[in-house]
Amino acid sequence: MSLIVTGSIGIDTVHAPTGSAEEVLGGSAIYFAAAASFFNPVRLVAAAGDDMPASFVDTFKQFDIDLEGLEQRAGSKTFRWVGKYHENMNQRDTLDVQLNVLGEAPPPVPASYKDSEFVFLANTDPVNQIHLLDQFPNCKLSVADTMDLWIQIKSDELRELLSKVDGLVLNDAEAIDLTGKTNLVEAADAILAMGPRFVVIKKGEHGALLKHVDGIAALPAYPSDKVVDPTGAGDSFAGGMMGYLAATGDISFDSIRKAIAYGTIVASYNIECFSLERLDSLTRQDINQRLAVYSKMLAL
Amino acid sequence: MSLIVTGSIGIDTVHAPTGSAEEVLGGSAIYFAAAASFFNPVRLVAAAGDDMPASFVDTFKQFDIDLEGLEQRAGSKTFRWVGKYHENMNQRDTLDVQLNVLGEAPPPVPASYKDSEFVFLANTDPVNQIHLLDQFPNCKLSVADTMDLWIQIKSDELRELLSKVDGLVLNDAEAIDLTGKTNLVEAADAILAMGPRFVVIKKGEHGALLKHVDGIAALPAYPSDKVVDPTGAGDSFAGGMMGYLAATGDISFDSIRKAIAYGTIVASYNIECFSLERLDSLTRQDINQRLAVYSKMLAL
Repeated sequence: MSLIVTGSIGIDTVHAPTGSAEEVLGGSAIYFAAAASFFNPVRLVAAAGDDMPASFVDTFKQFDIDLEGLEQRAGSKTFRWVGKYHENMNQRDTLDVQLNVLGEAPPPVPASYKDSEFVFLANTDPVNQIHLLDQFPNCKLSVADTMDLWIQIKSDELRELLSKVDGLVLNDAEAIDLTGKTNLVEAADAILAMGPRFVVIKKGEHGALLKHVDGIAALPAYPSDKVVDPTGAGDSFAGGMMGYLAATGDISFDSIRKAIAYGTIVASYNIECFSLERLDSLTRQDINQRLAVYSKMLAL
Repeated sequence: MSLIVTGSIGIDTVHAPTGSAEEVLGGSAIYFAAAASFFNPVRLVAAAGDDMPASFVDTFKQFDIDLEGLEQRAGSKTFRWVGKYHENMNQRDTLDVQLNVLGEAPPPVPASYKDSEFVFLANTDPVNQIHLLDQFPNCKLSVADTMDLWIQIKSDELRELLSKVDGLVLNDAEAIDLTGKTNLVEAADAILAMGPRFVVIKKGEHGALLKHVDGIAALPAYPSDKVVDPTGAGDSFAGGMMGYLAATGDISFDSIRKAIAYGTIVASYNIECFSLERLDSLTRQDINQRLAVYSKMLAL
């Protein structure tokens, strides 16, 4: 079924204990789209500036991504982010951020995308997320991501968004921040009370918690000692999850649980290299092989 | 097969956001033995003082625990601990600790226990753990627990212990402390390099990581919003794990992985009440029922 993502393209500079990457391809929509494309074609709505390197588009073309909604805006500059990971790789500092085109009007949604059935609203201002969501009248499953900034400064708008989407994806600190509950199961319940039918709380190296009106599930991360760059882990996780759901068309609790396993596996590959280097050479067979190992690890 | 635990009996006072419990039964050996007894009879080697309430012994008798090795030492006092949990239940402060009998000579191991095959050395001074381990020449599987204190002040002795035991159980902060590795898979590898065939890293609400010479597995905690008192969670986890292993006699990687699932389930019950209140009314059927839910949650 048709799958669309709206979010950012970024020029990232990443410093980690494992090395550095200067001005490489990043952004929520890009990690999501690349990850989802292993399961289902992806429509991309995102804006870059005229400083975006041509090599970025070459990379997009490696994946099954529809680029009609990619706007390269003349006279604008691409979103830029500089981050530094701590020794433990679980924490990072943002050293510099330049919103650039992300601070301007959002890119238009092509008419041919309006029939999209699976919609992922990557993290941005909830006002924009609501505006985007309204443009997909045939939506069968809408899922949003968010971040601490919007929880703090756009709380009412975020609540309005939550009354409209089917699912929310966010990390554990954000879930606690949003609900005031430190037990994640209680936090998840509090989020469902705000509207969504399900919430996925991402816990990084500790996996993910799914709370759905029809059930609850916790899944671990794939245990790995090869963590080079965690950037994009959450977005590639969401991409694998939504790609699987769009491919099967099954949005039941049990299907979302399995989709989370696929997201976990794609994210576990993504963090093995900087930028999209690992996803670039990844195959569906690689995903299936690691999923088989993961499934065996969890079979009791 | 025969299973023995050596560790502490405590008179605990616990303050938590969920309430308080004054001078209740606690201690590593007690939580372990109660949990293990659902799977296999347990021999207990532990010392209390003559201030131990008679009700404690009544509680021990609710479980399949051999009390020949329980020494109630005249003229001594029982170990006491007062702790307070933070709002998030994941952190606690020790408000008071009185070693009492734990600071004296360890209790003797009865002659009838010397043929014990499965040995769990609950957390104590590694010098004592080594001394105890030497008394079980027929040991088929020896597993030790430890804590930050011994990592810091008895590092050499702990290293010697690790060269002698088959397995180590410890929490994530302790694993990082012991190895200097912040990635838990790397930390686990570093621990295996110190001697044990396997290590189980406990992550509280995030589950456990098993690294064994024959494989690796991560399992989540059972997702619960009913956390009343986390005291004894790690010991009841280890008890469920060792009880299952002793009952089956199978110490392969795959059996340890399944044993961790059983430990996870027993611990998830233990934290629902103060002291041993929940284990006291628990049945093997309850354990099997929750394990079935957990298994289904993880089946991909």
